[in-house]
Amino acid sequence: MEILNQLKTDQNGLIPAIIQDDENKEVLMVGYMNREAVRKTLESGRVCFWSRSRQEYWIKGETSGHTQTVRTVTFDCDGDALLIKVEQKGGACHTGYRSCFFREVSPDGNSTHIVGDKVFDPDAVY
Amino acid sequence: MEILNQLKTDQNGLIPAIIQDDENKEVLMVGYMNREAVRKTLESGRVCFWSRSRQEYWIKGETSGHTQTVRTVTFDCDGDALLIKVEQKGGACHTGYRSCFFREVSPDGNSTHIVGDKVFDPDAVY
Repeated sequence: MEILNQLKTDQNGLIPAIIQDDENKEVLMVGYMNREAVRKTLESGRVCFWSRSRQEYWIKGETSGHTQTVRTVTFDCDGDALLIKVEQKGGACHTGYRSCFFREVSPDGNSTHIVGDKVFDPDAVY
Repeated sequence: MEILNQLKTDQNGLIPAIIQDDENKEVLMVGYMNREAVRKTLESGRVCFWSRSRQEYWIKGETSGHTQTVRTVTFDCDGDALLIKVEQKGGACHTGYRSCFFREVSPDGNSTHIVGDKVFDPDAVY
């Protein structure tokens, strides 16, 4: 895959992948991929990350059923970030929210409030 | 700022910040911030990154006039990524495109094509 040569990974061999809902354009999450995870994602059409905490490949939705089916893959001018638009089943966040970005910061930076939609009960899924 | 204590930075003291157009929800770019850049961003209402290549603070649009005015700041479940919705003047990408994510990868991973909108001539701006 020619694209793999155009991507610049960090000192750990990883590149951040922003996952965006292709329907409503909501940013759902950020995960990390190594080159092999990018290859798996393109080949399978399912988003596959490299889990930094577990040090293993992680096909999104494999446990929860909340899969991410790839619609388009783009990368940025520097080649050091991916933007993947997906069809998201259920919620992207393990806490039950549709998006991992469910906390908004107040303008003074001293408090937060919930802006996301809770779409499932994590205790029932994991 | 209480929020600064809730953010997890990487081994270089940085956290990725996804910049999204608040109007049309286009993902414009990814930059990196240290805690002080997050503070500057919240205090000024203008997006301020830490430039990894130049090792200095970088107020987006200072040279080009293509400023990013902060609308909302959210952060993810793990506290290790920011999503900042902005009002973008001009184009976010130094190449002249509206978004840095202007190249789409073909499904076989072997070629790319341009999907972004070119909104300015970089030679005339920088």
